Amino acid sequence: MNSKRQVNINGLTIGGNAPVRVESMLKISLDKHEECLSQCERLLKAGCEMARAALPEAKYVPDLKALVESTRLVIMADIHFDPALAILAMEAGCKAIRINPGNMPLNRLNDVIACAKSMGVVIRIGANGGSVSQSQLEEARGDRAEALFIAVREQAELLLENGFTNLILSAKSSSVPECVRANEMIAEKYPDFPMHIGLTEAGPGDGGIVKGTACISALLMRGIGDTLRVSLTDEPEREVRVGYEILKALELRTRGVNLISCPTCGRRRADVMRLVKIVEPMLEGLPDGVSVAVMGCEVNGPKEARHAQFGIAGTPGGAVLFREGKSFGEYPFDELEEVLPKFLKM
Amino acid sequence: MNSKRQVNINGLTIGGNAPVRVESMLKISLDKHEECLSQCERLLKAGCEMARAALPEAKYVPDLKALVESTRLVIMADIHFDPALAILAMEAGCKAIRINPGNMPLNRLNDVIACAKSMGVVIRIGANGGSVSQSQLEEARGDRAEALFIAVREQAELLLENGFTNLILSAKSSSVPECVRANEMIAEKYPDFPMHIGLTEAGPGDGGIVKGTACISALLMRGIGDTLRVSLTDEPEREVRVGYEILKALELRTRGVNLISCPTCGRRRADVMRLVKIVEPMLEGLPDGVSVAVMGCEVNGPKEARHAQFGIAGTPGGAVLFREGKSFGEYPFDELEEVLPKFLKM
Repeated sequence: MNSKRQVNINGLTIGGNAPVRVESMLKISLDKHEECLSQCERLLKAGCEMARAALPEAKYVPDLKALVESTRLVIMADIHFDPALAILAMEAGCKAIRINPGNMPLNRLNDVIACAKSMGVVIRIGANGGSVSQSQLEEARGDRAEALFIAVREQAELLLENGFTNLILSAKSSSVPECVRANEMIAEKYPDFPMHIGLTEAGPGDGGIVKGTACISALLMRGIGDTLRVSLTDEPEREVRVGYEILKALELRTRGVNLISCPTCGRRRADVMRLVKIVEPMLEGLPDGVSVAVMGCEVNGPKEARHAQFGIAGTPGGAVLFREGKSFGEYPFDELEEVLPKFLKM
Repeated sequence: MNSKRQVNINGLTIGGNAPVRVESMLKISLDKHEECLSQCERLLKAGCEMARAALPEAKYVPDLKALVESTRLVIMADIHFDPALAILAMEAGCKAIRINPGNMPLNRLNDVIACAKSMGVVIRIGANGGSVSQSQLEEARGDRAEALFIAVREQAELLLENGFTNLILSAKSSSVPECVRANEMIAEKYPDFPMHIGLTEAGPGDGGIVKGTACISALLMRGIGDTLRVSLTDEPEREVRVGYEILKALELRTRGVNLISCPTCGRRRADVMRLVKIVEPMLEGLPDGVSVAVMGCEVNGPKEARHAQFGIAGTPGGAVLFREGKSFGEYPFDELEEVLPKFLKM
């Protein structure tokens, strides 16, 4: 968005004029080769552009190497506690690593920096609320958002002092206001560096989607964020789909169809929920960014339906179809299942 | 939030120092008495504070009257096209009506205003993108957000000129950036009046929740919005639950438990998705605002879990339980279903 520098991970550009990227994280242990690979394939199909993979111990290094060599998905190694693991991940072929300032000793970062420099590896400094130190909290006078910012700053300064600028910055917590404030402070201090945004531990279901969306959309609307992950207690593909829904909602990036449908009310003339269930599976083949409106009555229906590329406006006996604002005819409800596939073609 | 005036609808305060209210809309025709009433009951149980009911024709006036007399839920009549319907709704006992400036003739509003004044009825001016007029669009030089603002302003000015101030203002469209901008313009011009916020036709499923959340949370974080509705192509109770999730995410209002759970990764030691499925149904009896953290590993787990009132941190063989930061013991996975109900008590 507003960052001036751009990093490049195996051809994937982040920051600068690149579109906001959509990431996820593998949720399978690296030693399960087939499962990891098929999760990568599903993620690619959903539009995922980079996935983190946790490297908790050195014994998984050969697995990480095998994965990086066999998937087209860009892999970022997720490293905690041990700087040696960061170096092993780079040697295994990872062109990006994430380190957590909250649990990696600053005085042992020099070897990591030297290795990343020589191999052209991007480092994401990823702080999170659960790993903020007591001294950072004290420096921030108990303000958890500021403590998160301080955690990122400490590590960023060390890397910058060493002339390392191939950086992505991030700070996450499970509180939306705290996370937004921490990211604002980072963006203000380091306006030139790409930022990864998201909430940590958003949770399951609707609540998780709400929290993730509130945080990520607030930041994107402030011009903060070059790559995102929606953390959900769910399959990673859903994280990716929700990520694109956020970008689509903010009109920053399109993927798939923009389906507009009315919430229905006591005024409805058509069964919109049933119509949507019929229409949704038919949308897969349509190009990115096409809008389809399904409306249930005459208040907003005809105008909104005409506005969309494909409009379906409920009438007492069925629906009027509009393509690019022109009527495609009125059909009784029981003919719609047959007519709609012909209608929904570019 | 930031509005200075407060309106009062049958005891429900909106604006001023009142908490942000959560609304929905009945999705059943008024002549289906039993179904409407049971939808109202379900909405009340979900925490809904006001529901709109569409009054499309005069023949439904007795039904509206019967509903208003038999439910505890505050009902706002939703009126389009015909000012006479607005008056009939007030006479039927509705203490709030919503009128749409896009389809109600300005020159016939005087009777509506006089009636609302004499009966102490609150009027919501609710513009939406589908009903903006050609002349409003022209005045806005094609800017749809500004046209929405102009639609609200035209009707608001007429009411204010007539000394009517018992007002709620709103403008909705199906585009998040457009809707946010329109509401910013309204809040700037009329900072004293309560505002109802939401997106119209957000759509079904995850995409609908994302769009609604992006719009509503962006406005609330700018201090705009005194009452909200999340329009979804779904049951109205879900709209209410998502509404509270938004307020909870922004830490503006609590309802139910704040469930924090990690997204899991290749590092996980516990099956977090399975744990969450066990824990979630046990949360119903806990007081509003209590936080429960379910974490899968040692990176964020213990600290985040300690931070929450109830913490469940996965270990290789089961989970460590924390209550108010103090250990409640470590249990193997197969004992958790039995231990958790005892643990999750205040």
